[in-house]
Amino acid sequence: MPEIRKDPVFGRWVIIASERGLRPNEFRLGDNPEGGAYTCPFCAGNEKLTPPEIYSLPGEKGGWRLRVVRNKYPALTSEGSSDNRREGIYDRMDGMGFHEVVIETPEHGKLLETMPGEAVADVIRTFMLRVSEIKKDPRIKYVMIFKNHGRNAGASLLHPHSQIIAMPMAPLRVVQEIDGAADYHRERGTCVFCDIVREETDFKKRVVAENADFLAVTPYASRFSFETWILPKQHASHFETMPGELAGSLASVLKTALGKLSASLPDLSYNLIVHTMPVQSPSAEHYHWHIEIMPKLSHVAGFEWGTGFYINTVSPEEAAETLNAGKKYKI
Amino acid sequence: MPEIRKDPVFGRWVIIASERGLRPNEFRLGDNPEGGAYTCPFCAGNEKLTPPEIYSLPGEKGGWRLRVVRNKYPALTSEGSSDNRREGIYDRMDGMGFHEVVIETPEHGKLLETMPGEAVADVIRTFMLRVSEIKKDPRIKYVMIFKNHGRNAGASLLHPHSQIIAMPMAPLRVVQEIDGAADYHRERGTCVFCDIVREETDFKKRVVAENADFLAVTPYASRFSFETWILPKQHASHFETMPGELAGSLASVLKTALGKLSASLPDLSYNLIVHTMPVQSPSAEHYHWHIEIMPKLSHVAGFEWGTGFYINTVSPEEAAETLNAGKKYKI
Repeated sequence: MPEIRKDPVFGRWVIIASERGLRPNEFRLGDNPEGGAYTCPFCAGNEKLTPPEIYSLPGEKGGWRLRVVRNKYPALTSEGSSDNRREGIYDRMDGMGFHEVVIETPEHGKLLETMPGEAVADVIRTFMLRVSEIKKDPRIKYVMIFKNHGRNAGASLLHPHSQIIAMPMAPLRVVQEIDGAADYHRERGTCVFCDIVREETDFKKRVVAENADFLAVTPYASRFSFETWILPKQHASHFETMPGELAGSLASVLKTALGKLSASLPDLSYNLIVHTMPVQSPSAEHYHWHIEIMPKLSHVAGFEWGTGFYINTVSPEEAAETLNAGKKYKI
Repeated sequence: MPEIRKDPVFGRWVIIASERGLRPNEFRLGDNPEGGAYTCPFCAGNEKLTPPEIYSLPGEKGGWRLRVVRNKYPALTSEGSSDNRREGIYDRMDGMGFHEVVIETPEHGKLLETMPGEAVADVIRTFMLRVSEIKKDPRIKYVMIFKNHGRNAGASLLHPHSQIIAMPMAPLRVVQEIDGAADYHRERGTCVFCDIVREETDFKKRVVAENADFLAVTPYASRFSFETWILPKQHASHFETMPGELAGSLASVLKTALGKLSASLPDLSYNLIVHTMPVQSPSAEHYHWHIEIMPKLSHVAGFEWGTGFYINTVSPEEAAETLNAGKKYKI
């Protein structure tokens, strides 16, 4: 069973999941032709290769158009307790939680940015639905929704998919982000993300996509080259309580942002993460859910990752200009 | 000129250094044979290809055995002021600071783990000396010493070298680490790192190298597979005030730890970072300098980097066992 260990200095939780080391890596198999032919478990017709289905949406001509399944190599499992235990001077708990995979389309070679808007809206509504279901379990404190796309972003399978990890504590970075936003709210009386939406709408030079409901920007203090955030214009702390009719609007801005990133960055790899309040917390005036997209430019990875100290060689203004002009960026 | 921008949510500082994007990448040139032959600026005989020398140690048969030069593509530069300025709702300052390169040997293909102990001790003493010099400038608040080795760790040149970045503020993660250690000290009256040394010496199963002065362990809440920390056994908050005679002892433990990592992990890439107190702060009972080594296993990079949420598929006990047995780890 996986376990969750706490760093005694930072209070940072780390999941130790040895079983997950066994998962196949389609990209690595590509390096090693001896690995033999690889059957994608996420393609239509291969449903028996995945763990049992949790949820699905029917396809137009039969079959399915989207599936949610348990992760075969989970970082957390439903067994165990969410109680804290001591081990010497350290704290640990069982790796209790849920780890699901959202298979976004039955077709292997698709990309979110070129899928129909309605199909991307399906993915977004599925995220909301799964979080709403999962949070009925009171042991679950946080639900992380994320997508690793491309080998430089740590994806192990090519077929379009996202992941949902539900855990018995809020990750430290989430706590710090909410604390930072609470400090800002205490000092200035406003939500920092609402202020960012206002500032960026006025300044314009960091805007990458926009419609009535959402704004996509390259943030002022971008850690990574071409980092892009999508913020709802209306204040809301919890992603999963978004009105369902906004899913199409979010899908449209997401498709535009990813489309521009993939036009400027050859062979785009990225991590996409939904930042939202812990699921058992009441709605808050000081925190505002949003999506962060972090492109991973090949071989540019430095010691920044994991140290919290960042050097970015592309200013967000230059990144937005490149994306909006549809220029290819030379890495 | 580079600039330093502050994230309004986290208070995290990011260096935006466009000039640094122009630096050559020896690994990338390898991908692209059209790039032509590449002359290493760090090799003996090519001294004119580097910016002016700041410090050097003479070689046995003439020439030099170690050089410190300014970084040709600096993340920070000595111009500008360390004053904070507003830009809309955001804070920024000039990218004032120093960025130096320590060329650890005149020989291109060497590795720290196989260099003579005395040569590694030279590198350590040079770090201490440079920090002691740099901190005479009162604008400098923190000096970060680090080494990126191998392409997966973001190194752009193969020739053995480390980097020193002196900056006008302490990075957020440093502040958080010191705050965490201060909380621990307030609650229990002891230094958390002294407690880790004691606990790990007793537990033994996470020890990778040890002598009278230093302990190398795979930490309890390892974020990365085969993550390794080196801690001085005697409490001290500032790296640069280490008694000079300990440099040889630290070199010995560092060589053993890197040697075991490189025996178990084929084509080892790693980031090594010295964690120490801000240079203008007085010595502290609650903080303890140490070295963190983070191996970067090829293609295993996930969304963990940059999110502060970590999933590690190799427990630190398994990592230590593998390293101590000299077993090859199959990625």
